[in-house]
Amino acid sequence: MEGNLVGKINNQIEMETPNNITIKGILGLLMANTEATDMKKVISLGMGDPTLYSCFHSPDVAHDAVIESLTSHKFNGYSPTVGLPQTRKAIADYLSRELPEKLCADDVYITAGCTQAIELALSILARPGANILLPRPGFPIYALCAAFRNIEVRYFDLIPDKGWEVDLNAVEALADHNTIGIVVINPGNPCGNVYSYQHLQQIAETAKKLRTIVIADEVYGHLAFGANPFVPMGIFGDIAPVLTLGSLSKRWLVPGWRLGWLVTNDPNGTFKNPKFVERIKKYCDICGGPATFIQAAVPRIIQQTEDVFFRKTVNLLKWTADICCDKIKEIPCISCPYKPEGSMAVMVKLHLPLMIDISDDIDFCFKLAKEESVILLPGLAVGLKNWIRITFAADPASLEEALGRLKSFCQRHSYQQNDHH
Amino acid sequence: MEGNLVGKINNQIEMETPNNITIKGILGLLMANTEATDMKKVISLGMGDPTLYSCFHSPDVAHDAVIESLTSHKFNGYSPTVGLPQTRKAIADYLSRELPEKLCADDVYITAGCTQAIELALSILARPGANILLPRPGFPIYALCAAFRNIEVRYFDLIPDKGWEVDLNAVEALADHNTIGIVVINPGNPCGNVYSYQHLQQIAETAKKLRTIVIADEVYGHLAFGANPFVPMGIFGDIAPVLTLGSLSKRWLVPGWRLGWLVTNDPNGTFKNPKFVERIKKYCDICGGPATFIQAAVPRIIQQTEDVFFRKTVNLLKWTADICCDKIKEIPCISCPYKPEGSMAVMVKLHLPLMIDISDDIDFCFKLAKEESVILLPGLAVGLKNWIRITFAADPASLEEALGRLKSFCQRHSYQQNDHH
Repeated sequence: MEGNLVGKINNQIEMETPNNITIKGILGLLMANTEATDMKKVISLGMGDPTLYSCFHSPDVAHDAVIESLTSHKFNGYSPTVGLPQTRKAIADYLSRELPEKLCADDVYITAGCTQAIELALSILARPGANILLPRPGFPIYALCAAFRNIEVRYFDLIPDKGWEVDLNAVEALADHNTIGIVVINPGNPCGNVYSYQHLQQIAETAKKLRTIVIADEVYGHLAFGANPFVPMGIFGDIAPVLTLGSLSKRWLVPGWRLGWLVTNDPNGTFKNPKFVERIKKYCDICGGPATFIQAAVPRIIQQTEDVFFRKTVNLLKWTADICCDKIKEIPCISCPYKPEGSMAVMVKLHLPLMIDISDDIDFCFKLAKEESVILLPGLAVGLKNWIRITFAADPASLEEALGRLKSFCQRHSYQQNDHH
Repeated sequence: MEGNLVGKINNQIEMETPNNITIKGILGLLMANTEATDMKKVISLGMGDPTLYSCFHSPDVAHDAVIESLTSHKFNGYSPTVGLPQTRKAIADYLSRELPEKLCADDVYITAGCTQAIELALSILARPGANILLPRPGFPIYALCAAFRNIEVRYFDLIPDKGWEVDLNAVEALADHNTIGIVVINPGNPCGNVYSYQHLQQIAETAKKLRTIVIADEVYGHLAFGANPFVPMGIFGDIAPVLTLGSLSKRWLVPGWRLGWLVTNDPNGTFKNPKFVERIKKYCDICGGPATFIQAAVPRIIQQTEDVFFRKTVNLLKWTADICCDKIKEIPCISCPYKPEGSMAVMVKLHLPLMIDISDDIDFCFKLAKEESVILLPGLAVGLKNWIRITFAADPASLEEALGRLKSFCQRHSYQQNDHH
């Protein structure tokens, strides 16, 4: 039984191409392997969905705004496929607060969550022979989208000992005239990195040198709680054109509402090429975006959500990140090279030579699910074999319980601890 | 000025490939050409969005169900990308009412409206060298999707004098071993056709003979008010595999809610091939579907919407279709070869030799918008030059007013009427 399931997971991940990996698929297989009859409650720190925990509660004003627009009966019909004008304007204004050049409504395209913004970005950039530069570790939807669009994927490393900064030399070595963009996820999933102003500027300069663009995934925008403040990549849109992707999902804690955006940050007007704009619009025509009444609620949601709500979320994430890193220090066989300063996840390294009977990250997560009913994501799913991703966006009690079980698990499977017997 | 705009419209439609046509794009240009200062209210019979008219009002239970699931705070998180299990089950049960073999939840994939179901269908079927058979006239999103996926489009005619039935000889002549599917829209947009059981069976038999599948667009499912009842194509899934596309949009009058589905109707299991299922699932992973809380409302919406609501809509459409056809009989230079028996639109033929100064359908619609503030869709947008599409899903008073203005317009531009002077 066990052998079969490990085989199945390994099969899913390795036998086929990497573009077959999806986080939800792997977590589903792991979840299926927990014991339903176990006395221990299953705790998942696998997915970046904080709504599973009641302490991460979306603001009432967001719900009120959606109910208001629904009950008005004014928004049951189609919206323009690029989004309602007032929604585009509200997001342009929201993002412009931190940009040197103000965005206008026409710079904003409304999408069904950040997922569709990724799909939109890659679809409009795709052309025969194209390649795209993706971070490793990264978010697997990019590779999946690229595969569907026949875009070649080239990975550059993020460097754990330098706060998961982009290996810019690798980027330069990988790029050629068919490179359609460099993907930067900041604040970072799966690493919890928050890049400095200087590093983001260097990325933009590199893109300029390579005559390509930056695809800035800021779905975790503003969720920063360390030394570096969140700096939107769009600030450097005058250096290289930037496509900014984002959504309400994480900051407003409503990932299921599927309200995202693709924004052109491009003072020099590269994206204003009518053919490019036309291509975005046509792709929006076939996309099927978010519900009109949810779009209609966005201006009120943005205007009326109070800062105290955002501060509460960020403080809670800082607290749970602290719990996570502190507990990991006490656990044998794993280590965390970088304390996360943003987003909701951290990458933890497995020291397999210290473990008795764990062959790799898949095996680790599989046995952990089976023995401790704790779900973590194998690093291979985000491109880093023999690491694991821990999502710390959980209530502190569940997080401590899960990390306690992780400690027991690692102790039980470590040579060192067993030598002490 | 006028010449420029006509040029712009013609340019958009003709200079580029047909896959560049979108109904919303053309209607936007026409709308921009109406006189804002005109005493006449602009009446649009251009788009299939009945929610513009208060007589087409979505059922209260649908709103209540969405508010219930939103306020429960249980559905703010991600759903499985293929859709919530209870939503898939509810739609499987809903469609199974009229099928010989019952569907199960796994046969149903939830999409952001029928638009995304089209995109999903074409994306999963796409492969190098593929072609798809589309009806002419038809719905332009299919050609647009095909172009994005490098699928060659081949058009077969619908025959106006035979109730817009499919020219099956043409289908056989067009198909080859690279044909990935035949698209059938029933009830039909833009023609208002409702196909008989026999004709649908013939289509399935043709697909079987050609070793291809049927993509059955039933977004207007159940909106039939003539001699033929609505027959779902899935009934013939044992003859040839059927992908059924649908949504809440039209029957529940909530197109902006973006709740659609793709369903495999396939008792012989062609679509049960694990690779095919895997491909659908992976595409769902990158799609970004509808909001979780709207999905969660679907079981209640389907269970609790009363028949009287559906009957009221169908009766109203029958009434407005009658108004439309009766009025058209009194208008010179245009004629309607087939009285619509379903959906919300009818195709009307222009007799240009009878008109003084109208060069084609674009020119007709452009001048009509300018002179009468009535928006109709040029037939070229749906593949039939020198026809026009009239959407009759409007309140009867507006419809009569618009058709009255259309009559004045045609009289003014007809030789016959001017000869009488």
